[in-house]
Amino acid sequence: MIRLSIIGSGNVAQHLIKAFTKSEAVEIVQVFSRKKEVLLSLLNEDLIITDLNNFQPADLYIIAVSDNAINEVSKQLPFQNQLVVHTSGAAPIDILDPKNRRGVFYPLQTFSKSKDVDFSNIPICLEAENTFDYRELESAAKCISKAVFAIASEQRKALHVAAVFVNNFTNHLYQIGKDICDEHRVPFEVLKPLIQETAEKINTLDPSDAQTGPAKRNDSNTIESHLAFLTNENQKNIYNILTQSIKNGKKL
Amino acid sequence: MIRLSIIGSGNVAQHLIKAFTKSEAVEIVQVFSRKKEVLLSLLNEDLIITDLNNFQPADLYIIAVSDNAINEVSKQLPFQNQLVVHTSGAAPIDILDPKNRRGVFYPLQTFSKSKDVDFSNIPICLEAENTFDYRELESAAKCISKAVFAIASEQRKALHVAAVFVNNFTNHLYQIGKDICDEHRVPFEVLKPLIQETAEKINTLDPSDAQTGPAKRNDSNTIESHLAFLTNENQKNIYNILTQSIKNGKKL
Repeated sequence: MIRLSIIGSGNVAQHLIKAFTKSEAVEIVQVFSRKKEVLLSLLNEDLIITDLNNFQPADLYIIAVSDNAINEVSKQLPFQNQLVVHTSGAAPIDILDPKNRRGVFYPLQTFSKSKDVDFSNIPICLEAENTFDYRELESAAKCISKAVFAIASEQRKALHVAAVFVNNFTNHLYQIGKDICDEHRVPFEVLKPLIQETAEKINTLDPSDAQTGPAKRNDSNTIESHLAFLTNENQKNIYNILTQSIKNGKKL
Repeated sequence: MIRLSIIGSGNVAQHLIKAFTKSEAVEIVQVFSRKKEVLLSLLNEDLIITDLNNFQPADLYIIAVSDNAINEVSKQLPFQNQLVVHTSGAAPIDILDPKNRRGVFYPLQTFSKSKDVDFSNIPICLEAENTFDYRELESAAKCISKAVFAIASEQRKALHVAAVFVNNFTNHLYQIGKDICDEHRVPFEVLKPLIQETAEKINTLDPSDAQTGPAKRNDSNTIESHLAFLTNENQKNIYNILTQSIKNGKKL
């Protein structure tokens, strides 16, 4: 049985609480939240603390707060030499105060409050300062996910940047696609199977082999006609730069 | 029973042949291909013609060739007043020679030779010059797909441009994500569940509600640190322009 406590009440904290609650090998000792109310639907009230000084002993403390609060929270913890991790993809391990044994427990997924996720397929990227602590983190991670990876801070940063491209920026392209549909009164529904297939393709094909379209086949007639069709300067600009980038191919 | 013939032997032609072959309500009368060999795995040899003058009567002729060949092929057809359609998202209906009754039969999907697709979920966008021909196209389309839409040429052009954003450009962002992973020796596998979830999210959420990340929350520290991390000017440029576009939000 792994006994752990969580600091935070946002998206990541809430999804972790839900996932760990389902595991019989984990006991959530306590969760710190400035406001009790946000967690009352997930936890018994007596497990929620609003003062960091009320923490009881646990094997692992998970700080799931916004990046710019991690350092401050780690300093405020009223104990030392305990295993304390953060859940950020962007922050290095040494953002944590060195009075405790430090680590990272980064679930690489996009969490929305309004949509449940199946945690078992979410990659969890772990880092610790020694093998013993790594094993402890690995045990906890394997209670909720089948995909557990050892990822050092520098690699995690690369992953985090790459995730911005494949998740945040991709979603923004969906938004632009929807804007174009709305403007021309075409149901966005028509594009949804294409979006799913585009994502599924890379499970079996390398993205470079899956690339299609006018930029890939250097079809300048179609490219010109698309640019003439677009009236929005921002969309034109994005169209141009991504078309050029595809044309340049491996010379990136 | 709908009796149809196909002109072409590329990706779209081959996927249509496979899909129509499975339908008991469709008879493929003939397929025109410059070279017989490419279609021999899909069709009996006697159904493949290499001379347009050898076409027998059919209810519908589907021209599935590259955009810049559609007009020429439609002129070369040795008959008139027949129902002739093209399969292009980018070309208008009147690219077809007016000696025949014209239409469009545009399956909106990304086709790779190396990956089979389930045609039943692929939206087919139809256009015809009169109701009678539209019904004929609709009957044929419904034999292979559950998602059939009436889409006029101008709307289809909007869809085609939007498809470039959500498919071609999105796949290119996957490629950049993989390039960043490769450069820093992180397995691209770690990002695949995120990619799937990003695509699945828009089945239940509007893309604007699904948007997350440093640009959305105006987290300039993370944005600066990502830009400092990227060494490739092209990647930096794309990062900047998409970040700015997300920040501008609905003001696009």
